[in-house]
Amino acid sequence: MKQKTPPPRSTSHFTKKRSVKAGLPPGSLVHIGDLPPEAASISFMQYDAEQFEELQFGSVEACLDHLQQHVTGQVVWVNVEGVHNVELIRNLGEYLGLHPLVLEDLVNTIQRPKIEDYGSYLFMVLRMLKTAEQGHFSSEQLAVIITSRAVFTFQEALNGDVFDAIRSRIRAAKGRIRSMGADYLAYSLIDAVVDGYFGVLENTGEEILAIEDRLALEPDRSILQNINGIKKEIIYLRKAVWPLREALSFLERGDSELIQEGTRLFFRDVYDHTIQVIDTVETYRDLLSGMLDLYLSSISNRTNEIMKFLTLVGTIFMPLTFLVGVYGMNFKHLPELEWYYGYPILWAFMILLSVAMVIYFKRKRWL
Amino acid sequence: MKQKTPPPRSTSHFTKKRSVKAGLPPGSLVHIGDLPPEAASISFMQYDAEQFEELQFGSVEACLDHLQQHVTGQVVWVNVEGVHNVELIRNLGEYLGLHPLVLEDLVNTIQRPKIEDYGSYLFMVLRMLKTAEQGHFSSEQLAVIITSRAVFTFQEALNGDVFDAIRSRIRAAKGRIRSMGADYLAYSLIDAVVDGYFGVLENTGEEILAIEDRLALEPDRSILQNINGIKKEIIYLRKAVWPLREALSFLERGDSELIQEGTRLFFRDVYDHTIQVIDTVETYRDLLSGMLDLYLSSISNRTNEIMKFLTLVGTIFMPLTFLVGVYGMNFKHLPELEWYYGYPILWAFMILLSVAMVIYFKRKRWL
Amino acid sequence: MKQKTPPPRSTSHFTKKRSVKAGLPPGSLVHIGDLPPEAASISFMQYDAEQFEELQFGSVEACLDHLQQHVTGQVVWVNVEGVHNVELIRNLGEYLGLHPLVLEDLVNTIQRPKIEDYGSYLFMVLRMLKTAEQGHFSSEQLAVIITSRAVFTFQEALNGDVFDAIRSRIRAAKGRIRSMGADYLAYSLIDAVVDGYFGVLENTGEEILAIEDRLALEPDRSILQNINGIKKEIIYLRKAVWPLREALSFLERGDSELIQEGTRLFFRDVYDHTIQVIDTVETYRDLLSGMLDLYLSSISNRTNEIMKFLTLVGTIFMPLTFLVGVYGMNFKHLPELEWYYGYPILWAFMILLSVAMVIYFKRKRWL
Amino acid sequence: MKQKTPPPRSTSHFTKKRSVKAGLPPGSLVHIGDLPPEAASISFMQYDAEQFEELQFGSVEACLDHLQQHVTGQVVWVNVEGVHNVELIRNLGEYLGLHPLVLEDLVNTIQRPKIEDYGSYLFMVLRMLKTAEQGHFSSEQLAVIITSRAVFTFQEALNGDVFDAIRSRIRAAKGRIRSMGADYLAYSLIDAVVDGYFGVLENTGEEILAIEDRLALEPDRSILQNINGIKKEIIYLRKAVWPLREALSFLERGDSELIQEGTRLFFRDVYDHTIQVIDTVETYRDLLSGMLDLYLSSISNRTNEIMKFLTLVGTIFMPLTFLVGVYGMNFKHLPELEWYYGYPILWAFMILLSVAMVIYFKRKRWL
Amino acid sequence: MKQKTPPPRSTSHFTKKRSVKAGLPPGSLVHIGDLPPEAASISFMQYDAEQFEELQFGSVEACLDHLQQHVTGQVVWVNVEGVHNVELIRNLGEYLGLHPLVLEDLVNTIQRPKIEDYGSYLFMVLRMLKTAEQGHFSSEQLAVIITSRAVFTFQEALNGDVFDAIRSRIRAAKGRIRSMGADYLAYSLIDAVVDGYFGVLENTGEEILAIEDRLALEPDRSILQNINGIKKEIIYLRKAVWPLREALSFLERGDSELIQEGTRLFFRDVYDHTIQVIDTVETYRDLLSGMLDLYLSSISNRTNEIMKFLTLVGTIFMPLTFLVGVYGMNFKHLPELEWYYGYPILWAFMILLSVAMVIYFKRKRWL
Repeated sequence: MKQKTPPPRSTSHFTKKRSVKAGLPPGSLVHIGDLPPEAASISFMQYDAEQFEELQFGSVEACLDHLQQHVTGQVVWVNVEGVHNVELIRNLGEYLGLHPLVLEDLVNTIQRPKIEDYGSYLFMVLRMLKTAEQGHFSSEQLAVIITSRAVFTFQEALNGDVFDAIRSRIRAAKGRIRSMGADYLAYSLIDAVVDGYFGVLENTGEEILAIEDRLALEPDRSILQNINGIKKEIIYLRKAVWPLREALSFLERGDSELIQEGTRLFFRDVYDHTIQVIDTVETYRDLLSGMLDLYLSSISNRTNEIMKFLTLVGTIFMPLTFLVGVYGMNFKHLPELEWYYGYPILWAFMILLSVAMVIYFKRKRWL
Repeated sequence: MKQKTPPPRSTSHFTKKRSVKAGLPPGSLVHIGDLPPEAASISFMQYDAEQFEELQFGSVEACLDHLQQHVTGQVVWVNVEGVHNVELIRNLGEYLGLHPLVLEDLVNTIQRPKIEDYGSYLFMVLRMLKTAEQGHFSSEQLAVIITSRAVFTFQEALNGDVFDAIRSRIRAAKGRIRSMGADYLAYSLIDAVVDGYFGVLENTGEEILAIEDRLALEPDRSILQNINGIKKEIIYLRKAVWPLREALSFLERGDSELIQEGTRLFFRDVYDHTIQVIDTVETYRDLLSGMLDLYLSSISNRTNEIMKFLTLVGTIFMPLTFLVGVYGMNFKHLPELEWYYGYPILWAFMILLSVAMVIYFKRKRWL
Repeated sequence: MKQKTPPPRSTSHFTKKRSVKAGLPPGSLVHIGDLPPEAASISFMQYDAEQFEELQFGSVEACLDHLQQHVTGQVVWVNVEGVHNVELIRNLGEYLGLHPLVLEDLVNTIQRPKIEDYGSYLFMVLRMLKTAEQGHFSSEQLAVIITSRAVFTFQEALNGDVFDAIRSRIRAAKGRIRSMGADYLAYSLIDAVVDGYFGVLENTGEEILAIEDRLALEPDRSILQNINGIKKEIIYLRKAVWPLREALSFLERGDSELIQEGTRLFFRDVYDHTIQVIDTVETYRDLLSGMLDLYLSSISNRTNEIMKFLTLVGTIFMPLTFLVGVYGMNFKHLPELEWYYGYPILWAFMILLSVAMVIYFKRKRWL
Repeated sequence: MKQKTPPPRSTSHFTKKRSVKAGLPPGSLVHIGDLPPEAASISFMQYDAEQFEELQFGSVEACLDHLQQHVTGQVVWVNVEGVHNVELIRNLGEYLGLHPLVLEDLVNTIQRPKIEDYGSYLFMVLRMLKTAEQGHFSSEQLAVIITSRAVFTFQEALNGDVFDAIRSRIRAAKGRIRSMGADYLAYSLIDAVVDGYFGVLENTGEEILAIEDRLALEPDRSILQNINGIKKEIIYLRKAVWPLREALSFLERGDSELIQEGTRLFFRDVYDHTIQVIDTVETYRDLLSGMLDLYLSSISNRTNEIMKFLTLVGTIFMPLTFLVGVYGMNFKHLPELEWYYGYPILWAFMILLSVAMVIYFKRKRWL
Repeated sequence: MKQKTPPPRSTSHFTKKRSVKAGLPPGSLVHIGDLPPEAASISFMQYDAEQFEELQFGSVEACLDHLQQHVTGQVVWVNVEGVHNVELIRNLGEYLGLHPLVLEDLVNTIQRPKIEDYGSYLFMVLRMLKTAEQGHFSSEQLAVIITSRAVFTFQEALNGDVFDAIRSRIRAAKGRIRSMGADYLAYSLIDAVVDGYFGVLENTGEEILAIEDRLALEPDRSILQNINGIKKEIIYLRKAVWPLREALSFLERGDSELIQEGTRLFFRDVYDHTIQVIDTVETYRDLLSGMLDLYLSSISNRTNEIMKFLTLVGTIFMPLTFLVGVYGMNFKHLPELEWYYGYPILWAFMILLSVAMVIYFKRKRWL
């Protein structure tokens, strides 16, 4: 359905341009982020335990028209893909009566995960991760607006989303989702996002295992770059999940009237999942630091080993070369040269010397 | 009674698959974890100060039938070994009126230790460690449900459990356990689990001592891998015990009505034990980091030592080889060659030079 | 409009003289800081939704005269550039009834960012950063006094300011600024300052990317100095932004009556931005530490590589030199010398030996 | 009076066996710890401002008999040396009505320092350190039970105690101790224990100074082991003093009715002392880490220095040896050999070459 | 006026003897610290807005006599220099009704900075630093007792004090000091002490700059010792200023009735200064750690460079020496020796070989 962009791994991911906004008044709607390949589209779902309707809109006007006919008691989920269409966001914002700062945040895709309580609606920002080919992952921003009867989600529309299973469940009226309110829908969506983190973590875990195996066999320089690459992924994950934990803690405490008492238990569950993600991320950090130590000391070990070999060779051949040099001298009176067994005696002596050296090395545990 | 699985030590332990659940509705019962070698079994104990009954069930229906005849005032302990039988868990959950999220957590064996208060029952998850051969340890998840008169425990059924002593005490009516309530039974079980941590810690401590001895004698590369291995064990232990401390703090504070005032003191005791475990774990981390420094500097020292030897040999023999080369030259007019004592004089000079070099080295403290 | 000073990067930035004040009574107005190139000037703006007046004063008296004629209901913004004119500050302070400690802080340009509530006015200090050429940034202190109807800003007047966009907006009555109070003006100014941080961060991020590219190609010593230079910038940024976050948290909580309820949401937005700046700064620290590891290990790797080459050359030629030395000896009875094929046989042997050595090295993975 | 055991320094100190208790019911009295060389003994003191009685008991029954005749209004101090006599502890515990968990803790000598409030008595555990010969220190557990009129202390009886000065003060009615209550006696004992920490710290400080002096002169490998040894001592001290601080904070806050208002000030004083101990311990950690850096870089420096020497020797003699080799060749037509001054010209050239090399090295600052 | 002692820098500063007090009852007045060169002296100031009296006493009795005649409404400042005179302190303490623990702390000069509220008076301990020659600083303890109308200060009398400017201000009735109460006097004194910290910090900052310059030019081993020396100064400063911040926070909160509402603002100002000192100290730590990295990698770089040179020399001359060795052999049948152009051909070949080596090295970027 959507195109897959190359996975983020490079440092450039941490340095998106935001300064284009400097100097603009607050509430200015300026899209910050990568441009998705397609135009924005709006999908619409409306359901209760008995009824279910699913629509797709190309323009915001059509969607707003349909929203007017909202059947009381039904839950509405409006999913906007592509927030670069500033006009669309502005119109929707006016219809819903959103605060200008919320609109500004909607089109700015480098937000920090957060939740804000505006009384009649909750505004939440989180990052949606998707594992891509080659063990990397892609990331896009997801903004969620929760009202008493509706959930509005805004995706960057870059890498597809993780909600297909929820759509199927709504269509098939599977599980309790059709009989619950908008807060439960919001929970389901957030839960799907956090579940996506586990997939990314598993990929990262497998990469760590692979590096560990290579470390045991034959460390080369690329290992360090792999370790550093995973470190960056982990830094990215931490930036996504630490603030999310804080935001979920708000929902779990039930400070907002928009969250039913019965749904709080579910939010506590997602909250627990984020803590588990954080736990794993911190564990990976510890594992990586141990691997870095292993790698660095393996370089030291190899330098040491090569050094020992050079020393062995030098220690054996330097004295021998000196000795044969002695008997290459042209002194008139050099008695040993005249001996009949001079040459074999020297060879015997040199062999003895070499053996002694090797024994000395063995004793010193350099061999 | 149960088979022992190979002990966890490898990194793969930290990377269990959880993503199979992505997209499923909350409350979906999907077993996550290793499959135990045997079928699930249910053991049942019912007692008060005077009476005692012990049964073993193969199916959940038989157990539920028996539970109906529960004698008021008696404490019931139902221990389920093997949570991969999803049907069994579902039936039991329905009978007990457990929340769907609790059921979901029961069959997911990679939970973070936690406690959750559902009013009429407490749901606790912790990790049960058992020392295995070769100083390693095995780990399985233990879930505990505490109601006013009963305790339900759910084991992964992989590595046996640490409750045999408690079973004997109940059978023999030893100690106060038969005269106390379900909360005391829960305490006894948790206490046994935490006591198991001490055994694991002692093993780890002995491994650390062994590595330290080897470090003092002759460091080789395997030491680093041993240090890293223990580090991983410690990371694992920390993940098990830090959240457990938090959960026990909840029990110790006595926020739940299911915990009697008199039992709180006992929970404070287990709480103290977990802090002691954490203390020891942190101490081990410090010790390991000191050992890593020792090891890395011992490599540097050895490179240094080998270097010095090579330098000594080179410094002595390079000038000597040059000298004998001088008198190996074929110049027509090379007066020293004609001297009668030229050869012995050269030897004397070369010996003097070598001695001077060695003295120089001694002065520089390179020898 | 203003001159640009060379960008701060050197350590000297952290060590400005403050000790000239030692021994003076509190409230002593002693200018601490660099002297700006020009005399102080005062700009004045007064506006409401309908009206707007902009003036420039050379002396404080003229400004104070004008302030007397303040139209009730209008917002006043007085911007003082150059706080080294102690008399000007004193006169203004007396007119406004500022606390002596506030006056003392106004002329001391090495304050830590902070906010102080003096009841009828708020006193805030923050650092205004501006990206300069070559990717560096300049920094000057900005002090803000917020009263119910006026905002007074005091700049060091070293590097220009970041308020031109706000001035245009006021002049053009763009956005909501003309219809809001002094608190909103204060928010706009602080927001502009924090937006400036993002520009600095982006520059730093690009420098980090550039260093990373150089690291991958050919690390030399200058990289370490670059890394250290960026580290210093980041240390500087942290010193500017951590205390600012605390100060903004005060404004966001709305503890002061000078901040309208409606403006609090905007302050929460700036507060979020400072957290994002802090997040990015911490991320950069992690990235830099990873790059340092990469650099240090690349040096080790190169030493290792050179070492291997020396060892290879030495190992091949030391035995060969010994061998040719043997047949350079002048023994009377050295039978091999008489052999007709002695010379080619020796060559063949020496070539075989070299090949064997190279194979040995390949096996050991030293080549 | 008591024998001195060898001082703890080795890692084994951190790994005492505790697992013997696994599986026993809570409240089981199992002695965990080293066995003292002598049998347990009980000393008894009873005093008020006017009267004073001191007794020594061999058995607990005699002591309990005497306790029955307790004169109202007098302070009683019962000091038990040797907690391995489980029967003695049980009897005393029954007489005093102690909680089973307290009894269990009394005989387990590897407790973490803590305080527990049982209403009618306070139970405190702390570690008593004594400097031993060779700058090391010995450690034993001290348990203190504070009731309204009596203090019971339980020592491991391994290394003597630090209370002799307090005994003298009670006997001589020196200071205010005879006119104060049991809480003041408890304070005096704890104060004496904390004062003992300062002695240990001073010893450690002197060791650090000694290592620093050796570092400046001539670093060898033993220094690292010394640094690591002190690190272990410091880790041990931290484990003893951090939890103690927490326990003393409880006493200083005066949450228990057993502590008089007037005595709280004294507990605040001990509390301050523990903070000072912690401060010093943390300072020592910083100093040690600085010394480790110094040591490691001194090894690098020496490798560097030796390397330079080898390079110098090699660079001078390798070209010279090549040159004399040239004129050792047996070419039929090698004109230089025929020159009359060939030999002295070569010498002159070789000397020039060597001087040039040395100058080059000086320029490169390698000499 | 006072002698200057050598500045503290050595580690011994952290290891003052305190153990002489072990075993003494609390409240024992034992002087701990260095003995000052002169006898203790007492200076006395009494003032209000109109009147001012300044006296110098040799004995405590004379001072106490004068104190009796205290004019109501006037502020008294008694400054005791030299706390080694235990009798003097005891007499003064009795007159003022000080708690025994306060007296004990007065004569113990190795206190941690702190504040204690004794109801009718506040007792504060802080460290007074003074920059000495050579960029080092001296340190002595200052104890301050604040009552409603008087301030008593106790100095070690080792290194002069930082109060001369305050004395002049009181004498000249400059600033507001003569019209304010004892709390303002206390503030002025503490402010002078904290201002002294800035001087010390600036010195340290200049030392850091100097080391940085030397690092850029030519790193030698003394740099590491300088870095370590500054680290120790910084550790010392942290120990002085972190607890002071806590103590000032107590004064700033205005928890004591002895501090007027109007003076709290001034204490907030000093509090801000201590935070600034802490900030700078932490910044210096970061800078030093960056410099340590630079230094260590510069050693690695130099080893690398020397290594490359040795490898170059060895790689060029080892093959050449082998070649000339070949033609030094005495084989009967060695055809090349007979060639007429054998010698120049060999030279040509050897020169070609050397050039090829150098080109190879250039390609490998080892030159």
